[in-house]
Amino acid sequence: MTDMPLSAALLERFIAIVGPTNALTDQADITPYLTENRGLYHGASPLVLKPGSTEEVSRILALASETKSPIVPVSGGTGLVGGQVPRDNSSDILLSLERMNKVREVDPVGNVIVADAGCILADIQKAAADVNRLFPLSLGSEGSCRIGGNLATNAGGTAVLVYGNMRQLCLGLEVVLPTGEIWNGLRRLKKDNSGYDLRDLFIGAEGTLGVITGAVLKLYPQPLGHEVGFVGLKSPVEALALFEKAGALCGPALTGFELIPRIGIDFTSRHIPGVRDPLSSAHEWYVLIDISTSDAAETAKTMLHDVLEQGVEAGLIEDAVVAGSVAQQKALWHMRESMSDAQKPEGGSIKHDISVPIAQVPAFMRQAEAAVLAAMPGARVCAFGHLGDGNIHYNISQPIGADKAQFIGRWREINKVVHDIVRAHGGSISAEHGVGQLKRQELAQTRPDIETVLMTRIKQAFDPAGIMNPGKVVPG
Amino acid sequence: MTDMPLSAALLERFIAIVGPTNALTDQADITPYLTENRGLYHGASPLVLKPGSTEEVSRILALASETKSPIVPVSGGTGLVGGQVPRDNSSDILLSLERMNKVREVDPVGNVIVADAGCILADIQKAAADVNRLFPLSLGSEGSCRIGGNLATNAGGTAVLVYGNMRQLCLGLEVVLPTGEIWNGLRRLKKDNSGYDLRDLFIGAEGTLGVITGAVLKLYPQPLGHEVGFVGLKSPVEALALFEKAGALCGPALTGFELIPRIGIDFTSRHIPGVRDPLSSAHEWYVLIDISTSDAAETAKTMLHDVLEQGVEAGLIEDAVVAGSVAQQKALWHMRESMSDAQKPEGGSIKHDISVPIAQVPAFMRQAEAAVLAAMPGARVCAFGHLGDGNIHYNISQPIGADKAQFIGRWREINKVVHDIVRAHGGSISAEHGVGQLKRQELAQTRPDIETVLMTRIKQAFDPAGIMNPGKVVPG
Repeated sequence: MTDMPLSAALLERFIAIVGPTNALTDQADITPYLTENRGLYHGASPLVLKPGSTEEVSRILALASETKSPIVPVSGGTGLVGGQVPRDNSSDILLSLERMNKVREVDPVGNVIVADAGCILADIQKAAADVNRLFPLSLGSEGSCRIGGNLATNAGGTAVLVYGNMRQLCLGLEVVLPTGEIWNGLRRLKKDNSGYDLRDLFIGAEGTLGVITGAVLKLYPQPLGHEVGFVGLKSPVEALALFEKAGALCGPALTGFELIPRIGIDFTSRHIPGVRDPLSSAHEWYVLIDISTSDAAETAKTMLHDVLEQGVEAGLIEDAVVAGSVAQQKALWHMRESMSDAQKPEGGSIKHDISVPIAQVPAFMRQAEAAVLAAMPGARVCAFGHLGDGNIHYNISQPIGADKAQFIGRWREINKVVHDIVRAHGGSISAEHGVGQLKRQELAQTRPDIETVLMTRIKQAFDPAGIMNPGKVVPG
Repeated sequence: MTDMPLSAALLERFIAIVGPTNALTDQADITPYLTENRGLYHGASPLVLKPGSTEEVSRILALASETKSPIVPVSGGTGLVGGQVPRDNSSDILLSLERMNKVREVDPVGNVIVADAGCILADIQKAAADVNRLFPLSLGSEGSCRIGGNLATNAGGTAVLVYGNMRQLCLGLEVVLPTGEIWNGLRRLKKDNSGYDLRDLFIGAEGTLGVITGAVLKLYPQPLGHEVGFVGLKSPVEALALFEKAGALCGPALTGFELIPRIGIDFTSRHIPGVRDPLSSAHEWYVLIDISTSDAAETAKTMLHDVLEQGVEAGLIEDAVVAGSVAQQKALWHMRESMSDAQKPEGGSIKHDISVPIAQVPAFMRQAEAAVLAAMPGARVCAFGHLGDGNIHYNISQPIGADKAQFIGRWREINKVVHDIVRAHGGSISAEHGVGQLKRQELAQTRPDIETVLMTRIKQAFDPAGIMNPGKVVPG
């Protein structure tokens, strides 16, 4: 793999594959591809290629392997770890899947959808809803993220509790290998034990082992009953106890259980239009409970009622409200999904995407807050997320009046404070956003050596020329 | 890797690791390890090692890699594809996990169980039930199969419909690599996107990439409601239509949907003590419906009632019975799980373990039966299995009065007849039993070349000395 700018003659060979109208060479056109939403990474590239078919992707990668030209696959560009941003040495070609955005087939009997990797997630959701089915992946960025990126990062989101991550929502893949060879693994089988699990190796590899060009995704019945409740309570201890009760009462009907701190309500009601505190007085912590039932609407109502009743009886719940309409349900979810955006007007935010065993969430929260405040008095912890998955977005807003740049400059230091506690709980410092550039070095330094060794061997086995998304995920 | 018998001096070095009392060298003791239940494979080995700890497994594999001594991991020995049987050249050492059979920890709050790989599946189920939790993997062989083998083969069984295969039931693994290095991946996290998915690579690799020594398994709430219904109907077409109705009505409460042919009822009521036809008159096909609900017992009753009522109204169901007691539920399941055993007194049986997309099961069944009967008039198709997973155990009993050996001699020929139709439907010829020795060559000849190439590269990356379970899964 080269680290030098690519020659104009070589660039022309790449451009010829997709045709000049599908290649961006003007820096003004390329610029939007060089950054990411958080502004942490900024790269440089001489060329964006927009192939229109798997065949074209194959020819691009074959040429890239032959000439050792680095390729960075780009999907919706919403990733939070810099996985989609090229390096800054102008040697990386960007390969955008945006033109490969067709739903190839919707099969409500087989309960699958087959789609190009460049399909926008919301379009997949809509195609499923059009045949009265549910595609359950749900993310804040669903209007712009693309399914190939969701697969490459094993995206999670708010419905993981029951439906799982992308890994669980995908039956088959079509992948172009770094050599240009095409693996047609577009299977529609629930069961297939016929060799090593290649599919799960590509899912979550963040484009370092090949380019996902198509996928077979699972569809589910549309729930008949859907209820959303919002609860004020004292601390994550009570939230966890309520989660256990809700799990026992609802089983797989418990489709969401999100933890929110008071400061999250303050921030969203202050900065997000239309958001207001759903409860009449303030509480230290909140939980958003989402219940979906497939048999009857009434079942969901009964379940939510029982959860709340038992939670009050057990002294876990201080106050609660049930969304009385679809609009109110959406408003509660909108508040939860605006949590990150609401932090922006409050200044800098140092982010963590961690998971610990569910039972250890309360202890982690207590220890992490103490450690962060000791390291940085006045820091405002805005930790929220998927309690039911043990996955907390442990965000920290800057102290009021602090210098933003100076605050952000302490990112790695504060990361270490939080991540040390995560590791002490046997947790992950990269729960759902992936590794990308952001966590590559820290993981290399902290994971067992044998994991890095095995990952490096797999990388070499799949990408001998080392062209795929260099500088991401795997150390080296 | 050597293909020659191992020297006595080398065997002594292996024996010294576990101690002589934990090594079998007498052929009378070794013989039970050299065959499998179907009698298709018979191997030879000079030594069975029974390590008592992960550390001992590590020392065995390190020595094996150093001396290029082939190792065959043995779990419960119930595998159906010869994966646990050594080759017949007396060069393979058997490594049995049977002494590593401790449940290390049961955590009903975190909903996990941590177990040695040598634990018997039924013991895991019991440990879960003791804390009012469910470990859902359920197989006919659960009284003797061990969890390491379940993981190595990504076992399925009757509860896959909702709970998934072993892959979905496992959070973390401890694996000894062929080099002797130990990978401690005993994580308890629902979400962890911190690198390549090593766990899923070991699951289903059938002991060719390392030896699984421990696992973190998921626990679920014990269902409060459980109902079993048994339905007579005309054909797989009606069965599929009923499955769709049941799926829509029950969602994740539909925990089993098994298809059974009339001949299966004949065989089991004839040969299995205590089994009798649950319905008063004969039907061409049957479905066993299993519903589990977590909120209330009443919900399961209502659901099953609704499924049957709608099935009758739609003209799908000819007759039905609901199990009126736990004993009756068990009797229905016992009949289903005795289907293979009941074939034995009927002579030889040529087996297939196939899957196709669920919607294509009826077409596959029709085409396969016609092709089998054309190739072998009088053959008795006894095809049953997990309709809800598209996974059919397409078993064929010999024609009445045929010569058993001659019949079994046509195994590969009849396999090809059935498998060609499976492949035409985009199906798998190894849905849940794995590859082992039985399917290795056929898969190598029929899967896309690139899959074999990638599998071989992974094998070389993990097991450079080529010692792990030679002659299984990967071609070469």
